[in-house]
Amino acid sequence: MPRVRVTRRLHFSAAHRLGREEWSAERNAEVFGDCANPNWHGHNYELDVTVEGEVDPTTGFVLDLKLLRELVEGRVIGDVDHRNLNLDVPWLEGVIPTTENLVVAIWRRIAEGLPAGVRLARLVLWETPRNYVEYDGG
Amino acid sequence: MPRVRVTRRLHFSAAHRLGREEWSAERNAEVFGDCANPNWHGHNYELDVTVEGEVDPTTGFVLDLKLLRELVEGRVIGDVDHRNLNLDVPWLEGVIPTTENLVVAIWRRIAEGLPAGVRLARLVLWETPRNYVEYDGG
Amino acid sequence: MPRVRVTRRLHFSAAHRLGREEWSAERNAEVFGDCANPNWHGHNYELDVTVEGEVDPTTGFVLDLKLLRELVEGRVIGDVDHRNLNLDVPWLEGVIPTTENLVVAIWRRIAEGLPAGVRLARLVLWETPRNYVEYDGG
Amino acid sequence: MPRVRVTRRLHFSAAHRLGREEWSAERNAEVFGDCANPNWHGHNYELDVTVEGEVDPTTGFVLDLKLLRELVEGRVIGDVDHRNLNLDVPWLEGVIPTTENLVVAIWRRIAEGLPAGVRLARLVLWETPRNYVEYDGG
Amino acid sequence: MPRVRVTRRLHFSAAHRLGREEWSAERNAEVFGDCANPNWHGHNYELDVTVEGEVDPTTGFVLDLKLLRELVEGRVIGDVDHRNLNLDVPWLEGVIPTTENLVVAIWRRIAEGLPAGVRLARLVLWETPRNYVEYDGG
Amino acid sequence: MPRVRVTRRLHFSAAHRLGREEWSAERNAEVFGDCANPNWHGHNYELDVTVEGEVDPTTGFVLDLKLLRELVEGRVIGDVDHRNLNLDVPWLEGVIPTTENLVVAIWRRIAEGLPAGVRLARLVLWETPRNYVEYDGG
Repeated sequence: MPRVRVTRRLHFSAAHRLGREEWSAERNAEVFGDCANPNWHGHNYELDVTVEGEVDPTTGFVLDLKLLRELVEGRVIGDVDHRNLNLDVPWLEGVIPTTENLVVAIWRRIAEGLPAGVRLARLVLWETPRNYVEYDGG
Repeated sequence: MPRVRVTRRLHFSAAHRLGREEWSAERNAEVFGDCANPNWHGHNYELDVTVEGEVDPTTGFVLDLKLLRELVEGRVIGDVDHRNLNLDVPWLEGVIPTTENLVVAIWRRIAEGLPAGVRLARLVLWETPRNYVEYDGG
Repeated sequence: MPRVRVTRRLHFSAAHRLGREEWSAERNAEVFGDCANPNWHGHNYELDVTVEGEVDPTTGFVLDLKLLRELVEGRVIGDVDHRNLNLDVPWLEGVIPTTENLVVAIWRRIAEGLPAGVRLARLVLWETPRNYVEYDGG
Repeated sequence: MPRVRVTRRLHFSAAHRLGREEWSAERNAEVFGDCANPNWHGHNYELDVTVEGEVDPTTGFVLDLKLLRELVEGRVIGDVDHRNLNLDVPWLEGVIPTTENLVVAIWRRIAEGLPAGVRLARLVLWETPRNYVEYDGG
Repeated sequence: MPRVRVTRRLHFSAAHRLGREEWSAERNAEVFGDCANPNWHGHNYELDVTVEGEVDPTTGFVLDLKLLRELVEGRVIGDVDHRNLNLDVPWLEGVIPTTENLVVAIWRRIAEGLPAGVRLARLVLWETPRNYVEYDGG
Repeated sequence: MPRVRVTRRLHFSAAHRLGREEWSAERNAEVFGDCANPNWHGHNYELDVTVEGEVDPTTGFVLDLKLLRELVEGRVIGDVDHRNLNLDVPWLEGVIPTTENLVVAIWRRIAEGLPAGVRLARLVLWETPRNYVEYDGG
């Protein structure tokens, strides 16, 4: 059977700041720029979740997109939407919430929850309409 | 010569429904959800067709995009635009028109028509602005 | 208090066809073109619902967007999403589902349900990414 | 001379929360939903600034867009980008940062800075890709 | 009958430069910035053409969008697409091709060609994804 | 450490024409169509620059996006924005400015300037909203 990649785009809005607690405000500002603002800032994130698998000849589906959406909403979006990524999310504890670190942490959350027969192939995480990160588990 | 990928995005609007004729309406609704509505529903599809090849040193083209557009319009868009994917398209006969099955069928239509020297590298088919499938012939 | 307009964009996917039952297939094709395909076609519609009112000094809201969304989902989207606009929607009975006629019918559905203090100011209905209609109740 | 409207779109990312300090956490959550999260959340905002005036027959401009951009960056974007709208912006002090209140406050900031001969005609402020507010000074 | 506005978006790509021939290169650069580059630059323009009229009770149309598209392609797009706006377009002769001047000139081209019963209500002309002009004939 | 891809989207507007000087106008028009217009035409280009590398455990960055933006602005955008790609850009001399040739030339400009530890993984160059090219250095 052909192997096809299926993507669902989801959305969340969150606050964060970048910085290391053991560094001075000056050093954080130097390394992280405006993103180090101690009073936080935030973004509308778009998350594209791509799974790959064989097309089921009975249904024509690789994976029911409704299941994929519910899985990602349950394991990711519900924890991060309208939240503070530094303070509110247990699975981001101790992580500087750059988009790079976020996408790796989100990968683990989704990969663990996927049913047999499909594999997580790629995550794309947009922080603004002009920058995004991609991760394939490598 | 460098190998470059060239993509042309095309558009079509079509009706479809998901389901298996030998199943009851209840089972179809259970498996395919709202998409099983017997009275059909429809979408605006976006199709990104990507070919790969060496850049011709004389023209600077991998493939004239006008040729690519005409090929895809002639072999795909003309057959599916403003049509019913379950009823109107000979090369989709017997196929449940999920985006997965569609992208595989469209691949065959385009791959057969491409001139020598370029290969079909990837198709991306958007069913809504929030979900799409990708296929690379594998 | 300042008067502000607040817009919520919603999405639905539906099948339809254009034509008059008392006309021949030929005449329908002549007037409505591809949209007259008897086997239906369909679209992803985007609906922008704009209400206008004074900003409430206690909440800073013209209208809670969650209420607006629920109202439009309840009175419009739930009836048209993944449906056939010619066959499945009681409040479109006897209406040729052009975008012009749709936007006027949707206006009535929403205007009747709005709470006091806000007025429906504008609807924009996109049928494809390249054409849309606007209506302000006039 | 013809009167034309000219629009420049600008971008900022900010954190905020909705709520009244004199209300309990419960009441704030009831009225403002997820937006009342005490640890903040945030958005990518898009701001469309529209000015109207006669076309200058010598330059063909209503207003040099570079001037408009610099004005809005200086009086608005520089104060709100990568900031907390509740804590960091002097001209938002005491304002619940709903999009409605933001657009009215931004209007005053821009209108005061515009040169003679053009008038501020409209602001559109997008909080997410699915909701926005408009204000025309009324 | 309800009055509805109907919009068709069209696209063209063109070269231009801004400047007055009787001015020095220095003065043109001062007033028009990078847009005064004597060797030209160019843009992808998007043009939204909006007509308003009563909905025809027989067809449900304000105006057949196919007619509108053909009219605008024939009277505007065919003259400006893949052309130089300073050199190639008879109806722009002597006009500095700012977006303001373009939208006024395009208005005249379209308004003259419209059939009875509909009026041209608004043109929106995007020069880049971040700036556009609007004109309503005033 | 995980390897992540980071992308920054940048914008430029430029004029160009396609053709070979040693060919007749007729032959150029035959091969390059409207793009051969001797008076030039132009586009808004979007350039997505993707670098790949290990996430730095101290900063959570693969590469500071500000550095990437400045590098691309300094080595590419500053040379091509509001310019003529056939006449104004030293590193495009003798190159027919098709998107294929452009993306290969831009690749060299960026790859030479990247700091150690990250590699240029992919360039995507959009010429219009409906066609783009991709290059990965191969």
